[in-house]
Amino acid sequence: MSTATLSIDLDAIRANWRALNEKTSGETGAVVKANAYGLGAGFVAKALLKEGVQTFFVAVAEEGVVVRKSLGNASTIYIFGGHMQGDTELIREYRLTPLLNSVDQLIRHVETLPHHPFGIQLDTGMNRLGMEPVEWHAVRELALPLNPKLIMSHLACADDPDHDMNVKQLAEFHKMTDDLDIPKSLSATGGILLGSDYHFDLTRPGVGLYGGFPFEQARAVAKVNIPIIQTREVDVGETVGYSNTWRAPTPRRIATVSAGYADGIIRAMGGKTALYAGDVACPIVGRISMDLIGVDVTLLTQPVESLELLNDRQTIDVLAENAGTIGYEILTSLGGRYQRRYLGDMG
Amino acid sequence: MSTATLSIDLDAIRANWRALNEKTSGETGAVVKANAYGLGAGFVAKALLKEGVQTFFVAVAEEGVVVRKSLGNASTIYIFGGHMQGDTELIREYRLTPLLNSVDQLIRHVETLPHHPFGIQLDTGMNRLGMEPVEWHAVRELALPLNPKLIMSHLACADDPDHDMNVKQLAEFHKMTDDLDIPKSLSATGGILLGSDYHFDLTRPGVGLYGGFPFEQARAVAKVNIPIIQTREVDVGETVGYSNTWRAPTPRRIATVSAGYADGIIRAMGGKTALYAGDVACPIVGRISMDLIGVDVTLLTQPVESLELLNDRQTIDVLAENAGTIGYEILTSLGGRYQRRYLGDMG
Repeated sequence: MSTATLSIDLDAIRANWRALNEKTSGETGAVVKANAYGLGAGFVAKALLKEGVQTFFVAVAEEGVVVRKSLGNASTIYIFGGHMQGDTELIREYRLTPLLNSVDQLIRHVETLPHHPFGIQLDTGMNRLGMEPVEWHAVRELALPLNPKLIMSHLACADDPDHDMNVKQLAEFHKMTDDLDIPKSLSATGGILLGSDYHFDLTRPGVGLYGGFPFEQARAVAKVNIPIIQTREVDVGETVGYSNTWRAPTPRRIATVSAGYADGIIRAMGGKTALYAGDVACPIVGRISMDLIGVDVTLLTQPVESLELLNDRQTIDVLAENAGTIGYEILTSLGGRYQRRYLGDMG
Repeated sequence: MSTATLSIDLDAIRANWRALNEKTSGETGAVVKANAYGLGAGFVAKALLKEGVQTFFVAVAEEGVVVRKSLGNASTIYIFGGHMQGDTELIREYRLTPLLNSVDQLIRHVETLPHHPFGIQLDTGMNRLGMEPVEWHAVRELALPLNPKLIMSHLACADDPDHDMNVKQLAEFHKMTDDLDIPKSLSATGGILLGSDYHFDLTRPGVGLYGGFPFEQARAVAKVNIPIIQTREVDVGETVGYSNTWRAPTPRRIATVSAGYADGIIRAMGGKTALYAGDVACPIVGRISMDLIGVDVTLLTQPVESLELLNDRQTIDVLAENAGTIGYEILTSLGGRYQRRYLGDMG
């Protein structure tokens, strides 16, 4: 077998959820959008259901279908993208709950699925999804008698506890919702860590479940192990990989491993990243190619069959720093070619 | 429907293959590794089979299985990764032809599948995959009586016609293979464009088929169309998206579209990239998030339902430049959430 292995520790996801749940004053849901940040929405949702999670969030209706099939009928699945044209049948058949973002969506929902549950998404300053204050003011007398299940908004700067945007959005959310007797939600992982003022009735942790910043105590969830195809000795001055960007400064032993940027090992991380054999860091040399990476294994005292990219020491946040991005993008890039192995209780 | 659509023009892939085939002196194969650069190996291989392609290349045995199932038994499928431990059953059952990279692989192949076809991969200086000259010299008397179907190597710098590495690798390949009466292959897309000295018996175009540099006359193959979820007016000084990185310089109209970096719209391209409504470029504003992107649609004179990211004008190479990478990585990053639509003759 020459494909790399992506191991996903469901027990670690559950432990991260419990840790965030302990910090949360109300109910703690779980965000499983983007295929649970690339880790497999069906498996992750089912493992969290067993932990007691009752409320899940996805980005689009199609993702909700996958989660519903995995969970059965016992839980609530909210769609951040709301009720888009063409979504009606999926929303009805799979009992999905759209978070309506605009007057247009509210009208569409009421006209097509008049008795089907929905929530309301408000914009409190991020200007991304949700009704603006003036829009909400105009339609709230229409919406409220229809009994929305949840009223929510999203923080733009929650990863930075000192950003004044947090306080501004919190105040705006209070202003728009304080007189309403509807369950409320404002915070994802970052907002949970801002403290109970931000928790309201339901929180929506995502990246914290999957082991990433800003939840620094999170357990690592994903590991990537890559088989070595072959190993060679290179002399001083020999080059490795595309465009001859790396030249051996001394005689080196180079392994070629079977994964590349098609597996989400972002090209930009190449210059700063190592693969690990136990505790030994083996630097990537030359350019990361689509399916192959050169690695300097000179320091290894005995041959190994594979090397680790992601592990407890080189986390998604370390790789993100190396690639000039965020841990979320490391996870969602991992791609379809891995052998995926789920560890822990499958739920 | 709120997921984005990825359209893949199989006729364009075929046209690109024909154009490269016309430039090639020998047989022209097709590289469909990494799920045909993310575009769907089964569909692409079948469309090219109908065009007359007889020889396909994948990275690993598991990819070969997908291609074999799509093609039936009439064609040859080579595996660049060779014959890895654990691959034997797949290679046998799906009639895959490994390109053996090392003495270890040669021994493994001969011991496990003594009469099963194979090829030989040589290293001519890239130091990535293949037997070194000294290694090849040591085993050629063992390998040649076993009747290898192909002997190949790969160029490290073929995208740059002036690089002296091309001439050096060509000379090394001649030195290692001139006395052999076995079909030979050295070139992928870049090598085809270097001229017939580099073509030998079989070429292996990849990126050129999919519309990317260095084949500048290639027809664009992939288009991405993203639905708008909602549109809002923002006042001077309002911010859009995570971390408030964009601030409206004048009153603007902002659309939020339903795709993000989980769809391979690499975060790093955000600052330089627009989405298109017909001929009108609408710049991305604020950070690309996982499932959503803010777009300045102020210039549009009438509402639209969706915007284009990839098209004939904003090609994979333009996006690659914007993201600081190469067109290949734009393609392989596209991800699993798209509605995929195949255009043209399905084969």
